[in-house]
Amino acid sequence: MTPYQMLARSAAAALLFVAPEPGTAANVDESTDSGLTVERVAGRPWTLADQLSVPRLSAVAISEDGGSAAYVTRVADTASDKTLARLTLVDLESGASRELLHSEWIDQLRRIPGSNAWSALVDRGEGVQLYRIEADGGISPIIIHPASARFGEVDGWLLRGFAHAPLTIGVRGYSWSPDGRWLFYITLDSAREERGILVDEEVSRQRGVRRPEGQATASLYLRGIDGSTTLIGRRPSSDLYSIGSKGDVVWTKNGFEYRIMEPVAGSDGRRVTMAWSFAEGRAREIASTRDYVYWQMKGPRGGQLGSEGLGDTREIVEVGEDGRRHSYGRFPFSIGHGATFGGLRSPDGRRTVVNIRSLDDPRFGIGVVDPRGVRPIWARGSLTKCDFTPKLARAACLAEGQAIPPSIVTVDISSGRVRHVASVSPEHEKIAPLQVQSRSWTNRYGHKVTGYIVWPRDYVQGTRYPAIVVTHGNDADQRFALQDNQWEYPVQTLAERGYVVLLINEASSRLNADLRAADQAWGLQGKPLAPDRMRELLWLTGVASFEDAVLELAKEGVVDPARVGIAGYSRGSQLVNVAMTQSRFFRAASSGDGGFLEPAMAADMPDHYVAIFGGLPYDPKALPNYLALSPSLRANEACGAILQQVAAPHVASIDFYRALRKSGVPTQISLFPGESSASDETHVFHIPSNRMAAMQENIAWFDYWLLDKRDPASPFADRYAKWDAMKAAQRDRCR
Amino acid sequence: MTPYQMLARSAAAALLFVAPEPGTAANVDESTDSGLTVERVAGRPWTLADQLSVPRLSAVAISEDGGSAAYVTRVADTASDKTLARLTLVDLESGASRELLHSEWIDQLRRIPGSNAWSALVDRGEGVQLYRIEADGGISPIIIHPASARFGEVDGWLLRGFAHAPLTIGVRGYSWSPDGRWLFYITLDSAREERGILVDEEVSRQRGVRRPEGQATASLYLRGIDGSTTLIGRRPSSDLYSIGSKGDVVWTKNGFEYRIMEPVAGSDGRRVTMAWSFAEGRAREIASTRDYVYWQMKGPRGGQLGSEGLGDTREIVEVGEDGRRHSYGRFPFSIGHGATFGGLRSPDGRRTVVNIRSLDDPRFGIGVVDPRGVRPIWARGSLTKCDFTPKLARAACLAEGQAIPPSIVTVDISSGRVRHVASVSPEHEKIAPLQVQSRSWTNRYGHKVTGYIVWPRDYVQGTRYPAIVVTHGNDADQRFALQDNQWEYPVQTLAERGYVVLLINEASSRLNADLRAADQAWGLQGKPLAPDRMRELLWLTGVASFEDAVLELAKEGVVDPARVGIAGYSRGSQLVNVAMTQSRFFRAASSGDGGFLEPAMAADMPDHYVAIFGGLPYDPKALPNYLALSPSLRANEACGAILQQVAAPHVASIDFYRALRKSGVPTQISLFPGESSASDETHVFHIPSNRMAAMQENIAWFDYWLLDKRDPASPFADRYAKWDAMKAAQRDRCR
Repeated sequence: MTPYQMLARSAAAALLFVAPEPGTAANVDESTDSGLTVERVAGRPWTLADQLSVPRLSAVAISEDGGSAAYVTRVADTASDKTLARLTLVDLESGASRELLHSEWIDQLRRIPGSNAWSALVDRGEGVQLYRIEADGGISPIIIHPASARFGEVDGWLLRGFAHAPLTIGVRGYSWSPDGRWLFYITLDSAREERGILVDEEVSRQRGVRRPEGQATASLYLRGIDGSTTLIGRRPSSDLYSIGSKGDVVWTKNGFEYRIMEPVAGSDGRRVTMAWSFAEGRAREIASTRDYVYWQMKGPRGGQLGSEGLGDTREIVEVGEDGRRHSYGRFPFSIGHGATFGGLRSPDGRRTVVNIRSLDDPRFGIGVVDPRGVRPIWARGSLTKCDFTPKLARAACLAEGQAIPPSIVTVDISSGRVRHVASVSPEHEKIAPLQVQSRSWTNRYGHKVTGYIVWPRDYVQGTRYPAIVVTHGNDADQRFALQDNQWEYPVQTLAERGYVVLLINEASSRLNADLRAADQAWGLQGKPLAPDRMRELLWLTGVASFEDAVLELAKEGVVDPARVGIAGYSRGSQLVNVAMTQSRFFRAASSGDGGFLEPAMAADMPDHYVAIFGGLPYDPKALPNYLALSPSLRANEACGAILQQVAAPHVASIDFYRALRKSGVPTQISLFPGESSASDETHVFHIPSNRMAAMQENIAWFDYWLLDKRDPASPFADRYAKWDAMKAAQRDRCR
Repeated sequence: MTPYQMLARSAAAALLFVAPEPGTAANVDESTDSGLTVERVAGRPWTLADQLSVPRLSAVAISEDGGSAAYVTRVADTASDKTLARLTLVDLESGASRELLHSEWIDQLRRIPGSNAWSALVDRGEGVQLYRIEADGGISPIIIHPASARFGEVDGWLLRGFAHAPLTIGVRGYSWSPDGRWLFYITLDSAREERGILVDEEVSRQRGVRRPEGQATASLYLRGIDGSTTLIGRRPSSDLYSIGSKGDVVWTKNGFEYRIMEPVAGSDGRRVTMAWSFAEGRAREIASTRDYVYWQMKGPRGGQLGSEGLGDTREIVEVGEDGRRHSYGRFPFSIGHGATFGGLRSPDGRRTVVNIRSLDDPRFGIGVVDPRGVRPIWARGSLTKCDFTPKLARAACLAEGQAIPPSIVTVDISSGRVRHVASVSPEHEKIAPLQVQSRSWTNRYGHKVTGYIVWPRDYVQGTRYPAIVVTHGNDADQRFALQDNQWEYPVQTLAERGYVVLLINEASSRLNADLRAADQAWGLQGKPLAPDRMRELLWLTGVASFEDAVLELAKEGVVDPARVGIAGYSRGSQLVNVAMTQSRFFRAASSGDGGFLEPAMAADMPDHYVAIFGGLPYDPKALPNYLALSPSLRANEACGAILQQVAAPHVASIDFYRALRKSGVPTQISLFPGESSASDETHVFHIPSNRMAAMQENIAWFDYWLLDKRDPASPFADRYAKWDAMKAAQRDRCR
C-alpha cells in the first residue's frame, strides 16, 4: 500500500491548491460539451480498444523560436502488451506531425538551449539514459551510465512506479542552464546492501513488506560546455529529493540552487536548499526547513505565489521573503495545481506564467501574472501540459476536455489567443462524442460537490436507466477519459451500453472550515477531531454526496434507483468500501486497489489511524470507532455485490474479501499480475492485457449484478456459475 | 511463521506419544551424568566452536550382515559457512571409521538389498539425486532427474526448510523392495504457474506471504530389476504426501502400498492409501480417511501399536483392524516418538521393534514387541537413530546423552546387549563433561515438569549464581547439546561462564486431564475451554514452572533470584514472551523466532486464535482476552530486557518489538539473513556464521543485563551504548 493510496485525499488537501467555483474569464472558448439536450453526432461508438488507447501526454517542449514542438505520449500497445512512449514532432504552423521515436520509456523531454534539438531520458535497452534527438529523428547519447537502480513495483525498488513497468535507471534527471553552457545531471548506482544481521528499525521497517526495497547512491554532476565534469555530491537513498529528482534546479547568474534531504531521526528529514557557485566550484547550504512545500513559484515581485482562502474564490497572493504580502485580488480559480505544467518566470522576472484551475466544471488554463495583475487564458476544455518559449511569448499546450480528444494548441500569451494545431489521437476524433454534462450537487450535510453526467448514447427521456457512480476523489475535471480518474472503469463504454455514469468529486475541503479541519487532522497538520466527526467529514459525507446525486436523478426520472452501482480506486476505493458497508443503496460495487481504513493497516501508519479512530484497534476505547467505520468489520451490514480488483495481494483487501465471504455477501477479489513473479502491476495499471481484462470484468460484474445480464462471449463468462451460487446464498435483507 | 512455530505444543500433544516417568528396565546401563556432587574431570572446557560443531546425526543404515554401518551427520563448516553433510562408514567390529563422502545434502541413506553398497539422495551440484555409494567410497548415479523444484525458506518453495539451505530437488524419495528387485522413486518437476489473473482463494492465500510458494508435479515411478520403468502416477503440489514423501511405501508380497492426498475443499484433504499390484500393473484405492495418523506400526498381532493413558505409565496396546484391542500392560515409557527411528517389523511378522521414551529424565530406547510382551532395551543415555538387520537381529544406533557425546553402538536384540563401537565426534570427547543433573519440579498449579540442571563449571557450594532458564517445550531429554532444544542459546558455554542453566520442559499434557483438554481444544480436536483456562493451562502454568523451579534453587542457596534470565525459541518464544509480560521475575530474556499469540497473526489461523481467545481480536467480547495474554498488548507490564532473534521479519515479532520500545522496555530485535535476498535463514538456523553470531549475541545480552558485564572483544560491543541508553531510560518499577 503506498501513501498515494492511503492518504490521497489528505495529500490533495494539504499539498494542492484546489478551488471550487467556475471560471468566467475573458478568453474562454465556450465549451460545447455540456447540456442535457441530446444531439446525434456523426462518428462511431466507443469501444474498449478506444478506452485502452487513450493517450497520456507526459511531456511537451516547444522550440526556442516557437515554430515546432515535441511531445511524448504514453499509449497501450496491445501487440507487445506494453505501455509504450512515443515522441512526436509537430510543426506548430502547419500542424504536420511526425513520430521521431518510440520506446518503453521517454521522459523529461526538453529543448536543448541554443539548438534545434531535443533531449530526453530514453530507455533504448540499456536502461534509462540521456539522449539528444534531432528534428530529423537522429538520436545520439549525451550521458550513458551503467544502469542498475530500479524503479517500479519490483524487488529492489527505489521509487514506486506510477503506471509504468519496472525501469532500470542510469541517468535519473537533468537540467540545461538557460544559456545552454551547463548541464546538471544525476546518475544512480544501486548499492547492494552488505549481507548481515539487521537490527531494530532495519527489521521493523520490513513489517509486511512485499517487495524488498533497494539501496542506491545518487551522484550529482555538472558538465561545462568544454565537457569538463564536476562531481557535486553523492547522496544516499534516503535523500528522496536526489533519488526522485527530475533535474529540478533553479539556475541563477552565479550558479544554481538544488534541494537535498538530510535524514533526521523521527521525522521525514530536513529539506536543505544548496547553492552551487560556478566561481567557487562548490556548494553551500542556503536554507533549510522541515516543512514540505509542494509548489514554489516566484511572482513578478520576487515573492512566492499562492492561492489562499476558503470559499468560492481564491485570493492570489505573493509573499516576499520579508513576509510582505501582495494581493492580486480574488479570482474564481486557483493556481499551482499538480496535474499540469507548474509555472515559469520570464528571464527579466517581470512576468510569471502559472497553471490555473477553475472551480465548478473544473478546467485548467494559464494564468499570466505581472505587476498589473493576474490574467487568465482559457481554452475550450482544458490546457493541461504546456511549455513556453524562453521569453514566455508563446506556448505549446495540450488541450482536452471530457468530450474533447486531446490536441496540441498554441497559445499567444499577450493576446491570449489559443489556436488548434494538430490532433494527438486521430482515432479518438472518429468517435461520436458522448454527451457529458457538468453538474454540481449539494448533499444532505450541505456540502457541495462537482462532477459530470455521462449520458447513455441515444438517451430517451422518460426511460429510467441504470446508473454507476465513478469516483476518485477530486480529479473528475475537463480532461479526456483520464485513466487517473476513471481507472479501469470504462466510463464511456458503460454509457454506450446504456448506463448513466456519474463522475463525482468529493466536497472540496477548501469549501468549508469543517472539511478543512478534518483533512488537516488526518494529515497530522491540525487539531484532532472526534472520531465521529472524522468519520462524517472524511467518508460519510462522500457517500451521502453519491447517494443524493443519484436520488436527484431518480427524482428527475432519469435513473432507476434499484439498479445503481459504484466504482472507485485508491481514495475512491475507501469511499466505495464505506458506501457498501454503511448503506444498502448500491446493488453492486467495484473497488480498485485500496484498503485504507482496515485495522490490519493500522500498524503501518499508526499516527494517521489514531487521528481517525482515536486510537489503535486493540485499544478498547478506540475499537468501537473501528467497528463503526472499518469496512471489514462491517461486512455484516453489506449486501450489494462487491468486486475488488487489486494490483498486489494487499492484506487489507484480503481481510475485506474474507469478511464479506464470511458474511455471505457476494464478493470477488481479482489480482492482476505484474510482468513476472518479481514485480507487480502498478496502482494505476500499465499492462494493457490487465487493463483490458479489468474493464471487461467490470462490465461483466455490473451487467450481472445490476441488470441480471450475461454475455456468453465475455472472457469472464466462466464466473457466472460462481456468481449464481453467491446470489442464491445472498441474505434475504438484500433482495 | 510456520505451523511448526505456531502450534509446536499442540502438535506435539496431538501427534506424538509422549509419556512422563522414568524407565526402570532390565538392560539399562546406569547413566553417570546426574548428581549434584561436582567432580573435576579431565578435559578442556566448552567453547562456542564446540557448540557450533555438535553433529546432527540424520541417518544410519546397517549392512545386511550387520558387519558395518553407514551414517550421515550434518555439521557446521565454518570455512564454507555451510552446514555440510558427511557420510561415514564404520566397521561395527573394529570401530574403524572412514568418511566416504561429504556434500551440502545427503539424505535417505539406505542399504541396497542384496549388495554391500548403500544408496542415498545426495546433492553433488546437480540438485538432489539418487546415488549408489560403494563401501570403498565409489559413487555412481542411480536416478538423475533435472532438478527444478525448491525446498527451503526460498522464493518458490514447495516445502519449508528444517535447518537446511535451499535445496533443488530432482529425486524426492525412494524405496527398495526388501528383495532388491524393485525400486520405487519420486521425481519432482517445478511447474511454472501461468501468468494470469488470480481470483478469490488464490489471492486470499497470499495474505502476508513473504516468500511466494512454488508449484510442482510429483511423478511416482517403479523400476524393475530389468531396468524397465513404469509411471505409477503424477501428483500435484497439493498432495503433500507425494511432495513430502521419503519413499515411505509398505512392500507386500504382491506389490506395495503408498499414500496420496486428494484435495477436499474446506479441509486438509482426504488421505488415500493406494495399492500397486505387480500382477495388474496398476494401483487401486484401498483405504481413505480424513484423519491424520502420525505414526503407524503394526504389532505381532497385525494390529496398530500405540501408547494410551493419562498418568505416570503408558499402556501399550495393539488394536486390530476389527477394533479388537490387546493390552501388553502398563510401562514407564511410551512408544513411537517422532524424534527417533520409528519402528520395523520382522519379515515373519512375529516381532516388531519400536522406539520407546522413558518418562522422568527422558531417554530413548528400543522396545521389542512380540506375542509374549514388550521388552525395553536401554543404553547409557539414549538410543536415538537406529537401523536393523533384515531379521531384526541386530541394530546400529546412535547413543548420546546430556553429557555423553554421540557414538555409534550396536545392539543385540535378543540379549539386549549394547556395545560402544566408535565416537561420532572425537573432538567433543575431549571436553570435560559438565555436570548435568536430571530433575523434576511441581509448580504452584500442581503440574509436574521434568528438566536438567547444567551446573557451572567449578561450582562452589554456598555461592549464589546467576541463572538462565532455557525451554523449547518438551525436548529437554537425554540427547547431546541438541540444537532443536537449545537453539542458539549456548547452554554449555553459559555454564562455563558461571551461569546455572535450567533446561525445563513443560508439564506434559499426558500427565493430567486438564492439560490434555486444553491441548485438544487448541488443536481443534476437543471441546472449547474458557479463555482464562486456556491461558492458564497452555501458558501461565509454563511460566509458573520456570519461576517455581528457580525459586526452589534460590531457596537451596544456589541461584541469585535477582539475576535470572530466560530463553526459548518457537514454542519456547511464546513462553518467554508471556513470562516477560506477566511477571517481573526475569531480568533479561532471549526469544527466538516466534510470535504466536500476537493479534496480528490471528487472521492467518483464525480457528486456533478463536480457540484460545474466544474470538478474533476485533471482537469486543474477545479483546479483553487478548489484552490479558498477547505479549505486545502487555508491553506496559514488562520490565526485563527482551532480545528477539528472528529468521525472517515476522509481523508478530516486529509488533512486539515496537510495543516494547514504545513502553520504554529495553529491547532489541535481530534478524539473521539467509544466503541471499531470495531466501531466509531457517527457523532452526543452518548458516554457521548466523549461529555463531546469535550465540555471541545471547552471551553479550545476558552478561550485560544480568551481570552488568561488558566484553570489549564481543562482536556486539558496539551495542553497549544503545543498551546503556535503554537502561538509563528504563522505568523505575523495574529497577
